[in-house]
Amino acid sequence: MRLLTIDSVNPAILKVQYAVRGELAIKAEEHRAKLTKDDHGLPFKRIINSNIGNPQQKGLDQPPITWTRQVCALMEWPALMDLAPQAFPKDVIARAKELQEDIGSIGAYSHSQGVPLIRKSVANFIEERDGYPSNPDHIFLTAGASTGVSLLISMLITPPKSGILIPIPQYPLYTATLAQHSGIAIPYHLDEASEWSTSLHEIEGALAKSYEDGIEPKALVIINPGNPTGALLDENTQEELVKLCEKHSLVLLADEVYQNNLHKPDSHPFTSFKKIVRRMNSPIPVFSFHSISKGVQGECGRRGGYFECTNIPDSILALIYKMASVGICPPLTGQIGVDCMVRPPKPGEESYPLWKKETDTIHETLALRTKIMAERLNKLPGVSCVPSPGALYLYPKLDLPESAIEAASKAGKSPDTFYALQLLDETGICVVPGEGFGKKDGHNYYRLTCLCPGVEEYVGALEQFHVNFMKKYGRV
Amino acid sequence: MRLLTIDSVNPAILKVQYAVRGELAIKAEEHRAKLTKDDHGLPFKRIINSNIGNPQQKGLDQPPITWTRQVCALMEWPALMDLAPQAFPKDVIARAKELQEDIGSIGAYSHSQGVPLIRKSVANFIEERDGYPSNPDHIFLTAGASTGVSLLISMLITPPKSGILIPIPQYPLYTATLAQHSGIAIPYHLDEASEWSTSLHEIEGALAKSYEDGIEPKALVIINPGNPTGALLDENTQEELVKLCEKHSLVLLADEVYQNNLHKPDSHPFTSFKKIVRRMNSPIPVFSFHSISKGVQGECGRRGGYFECTNIPDSILALIYKMASVGICPPLTGQIGVDCMVRPPKPGEESYPLWKKETDTIHETLALRTKIMAERLNKLPGVSCVPSPGALYLYPKLDLPESAIEAASKAGKSPDTFYALQLLDETGICVVPGEGFGKKDGHNYYRLTCLCPGVEEYVGALEQFHVNFMKKYGRV
Ligand SMILES: Cc1ncc(COP(=O)(O)O)c(C=O)c1O
Ligand SMILES: Cc1ncc(COP(=O)(O)O)c(C=O)c1O
Repeated sequence: MRLLTIDSVNPAILKVQYAVRGELAIKAEEHRAKLTKDDHGLPFKRIINSNIGNPQQKGLDQPPITWTRQVCALMEWPALMDLAPQAFPKDVIARAKELQEDIGSIGAYSHSQGVPLIRKSVANFIEERDGYPSNPDHIFLTAGASTGVSLLISMLITPPKSGILIPIPQYPLYTATLAQHSGIAIPYHLDEASEWSTSLHEIEGALAKSYEDGIEPKALVIINPGNPTGALLDENTQEELVKLCEKHSLVLLADEVYQNNLHKPDSHPFTSFKKIVRRMNSPIPVFSFHSISKGVQGECGRRGGYFECTNIPDSILALIYKMASVGICPPLTGQIGVDCMVRPPKPGEESYPLWKKETDTIHETLALRTKIMAERLNKLPGVSCVPSPGALYLYPKLDLPESAIEAASKAGKSPDTFYALQLLDETGICVVPGEGFGKKDGHNYYRLTCLCPGVEEYVGALEQFHVNFMKKYGRV
Repeated sequence: MRLLTIDSVNPAILKVQYAVRGELAIKAEEHRAKLTKDDHGLPFKRIINSNIGNPQQKGLDQPPITWTRQVCALMEWPALMDLAPQAFPKDVIARAKELQEDIGSIGAYSHSQGVPLIRKSVANFIEERDGYPSNPDHIFLTAGASTGVSLLISMLITPPKSGILIPIPQYPLYTATLAQHSGIAIPYHLDEASEWSTSLHEIEGALAKSYEDGIEPKALVIINPGNPTGALLDENTQEELVKLCEKHSLVLLADEVYQNNLHKPDSHPFTSFKKIVRRMNSPIPVFSFHSISKGVQGECGRRGGYFECTNIPDSILALIYKMASVGICPPLTGQIGVDCMVRPPKPGEESYPLWKKETDTIHETLALRTKIMAERLNKLPGVSCVPSPGALYLYPKLDLPESAIEAASKAGKSPDTFYALQLLDETGICVVPGEGFGKKDGHNYYRLTCLCPGVEEYVGALEQFHVNFMKKYGRV
């Protein structure tokens, strides 16, 4: 018989790339396995997984919000309400009872679109945030934002000649999903020189080129706050983008998973695209994504999130429902995580003080760390770094010596991958090279998260490595 | 601007069909909403969702296994180990500690392939079950079996002219996923007359036809125990099927999610395809699926499962890993559910007696209910029903009066959909018509689950409806 080989599988799958868990991450796992042996011979003691925004990961250990975990523990084993009532605040017990009344057991499949009560909580959250009505029937709960993005991209693409506008640098979920569904990524570049801003002119250029190439643009992806850039859009730009979608009949995919990670909310606030579209009374179709993985929740492993559909006709909503039903339903503990995020304790309730303290601490720590890290990185020779006003990352630009670029080319690597591999081998710090996010030719970057236990250990090691690297390749 | 319409989306998505949550299920939800009003005017008091194998669903209320829920509650909020140690058996605390040591927080993304420790538990479970080695690196944890099936189908299909052999009747996940990824379903019929057995001859016929039509067959799907049929394969047939895969270079997709739902284990035992393939020393590539949604766990809402890869080259394993990493990781509480399923308490451990009692009760109740229901259905005029030896369903065949078939045709429905819609409207019982599983022309069926609280209420209503239906359409 013929065996199963790489040549016999779907060629679209071969084209998929996903760097966040790619070459660097795999090598980091190999190092981690080595470190468990006494004679590992590595010049560091542990791996710092700075390649992925995973706040609660071992070694980073951002504590979970107690409120969420208490509600979930009761949903897992409701008998605890009677067996250990003293262990739980009253508002936790009340919330768990309310959810249980509606859901029944979390071991049952729910409505494919998500538990109705939780969709109502989400709609209320959106209404309060934006000041415009939100319809629970237009909300789909998901297993993290990822499944929503992937479902909608697979629906919007009509192979072989249709595409979606993707910011560069981008979160690679977008290009990976496009490749999988034989859609074409139409790249538009963000501008590092102006705090990674989004330029209408750039997008118009990308559109013109796609028309020339006979590619039909279907949708525009905006990541706001940005990943990997941390940039925030101002409302003026958002309005211009909505007009552009009107002009070119584009669906807007608004990835707003970092809406609650704002380090300078006064100068760089967040406004949702839903609000802008409603205020402008625009008819453009919008799908906006949120997730429990980021913000102060950091509940990545739970896999929870949602998307809201704005200006989407019923026939398309029915189609989305059908596709959601093939996967049966999103994980119930993820759905409950969404409820805990959008409906936290209120002032005066028993859980409020602890919730407030925990969430404030996470916000403050992240903002401070981002600031310190950006300052220190900016002091390094050949490094420049926009001090991100949002999200969880920094995206420093590297101006590398010619001889390093030549050495990289000899090793068959892009210069930033070459740099990142050495960083990993020498310090145990795993970052994602700019190559993984797409980038302008000839520019080098890497993305690192601002989630780290001790800034000194982390940034100190980065600094030392960088200086040595620059020396090694002939620049001081 | 042009609006988003059904004509502008991916045509592959329009072709997807998924009846388990289709027309009937949607109508049942409408009835359910009506029932909350005093003047609902419906001739029944509640909806019985017999359309989906969802044991813990409200109204069915199969209790969760306490062991699983206790472990999960501690993983959600580890502080409970100190706050309420008396509430938890010692082996539960020990398991939670062990898992926590390895995983850290369940709020963190895990390894994309699943937590290494849990993959080891799965490998041990498989080794004990089959007597052949199992490699944790060849196991992928998933969000229910569904995501695994969907991932692998999307990989194996090379559009536009390749297909996968699907049993008819089938679980519609298969045709839905094939439609989504522009793969072709190559149907082969199971034989009702011989307890829904799988015939090599039928499959050879389907293969011959697909070659004629220029369709390349890539894989063979076997659901064992069957859904909707409940049939179990004997080892002899399994060996023949493996030889057939060898002969035609087919990948075997072995859906074994019901492996622990055996009602007559002496006459109808379960043997895994992995074991058969190893025993025969066959080189055929096998992916075998398991889930926590069925068996005695019934933890559907948790979304947990796994697939094991047998005879799969490293290059393909790497490809699967890449695709799994785009979705980042399966839900942690689903992964923990898998650990609890494959590594239950052992005799002598504190949780064992309760675990044993709970699981025995579920097995016995299901077997008894299946038997009684089949007997009573078989007594009805125009109904014949194989008494399923496995899974959670019965799949009665309907011999309907001509005038009912004509009335259905006038209403633009298949006769079994016509029957099922009236059943829903008159009794509140929601089943899935045979149409949803694919079927031979001119035959009518429906699938109902054997998960119900009171057999009398449920079967009594079915019987009465059926007799009235037959009278109404002129047969007594
Ligand atoms: C911009 C962006 N969108 C979506 C996601 C997906 O996150 P999740 O699927 O965990 O919600 C991420 C994760 O890092 C992200 O950075
Ligand atoms: C045969 C079969 N395979 C797979 C599944 C998927 O179940 P899950 O995704 O919940 O594991 C089901 C669910 O009913 C099924 O019947």
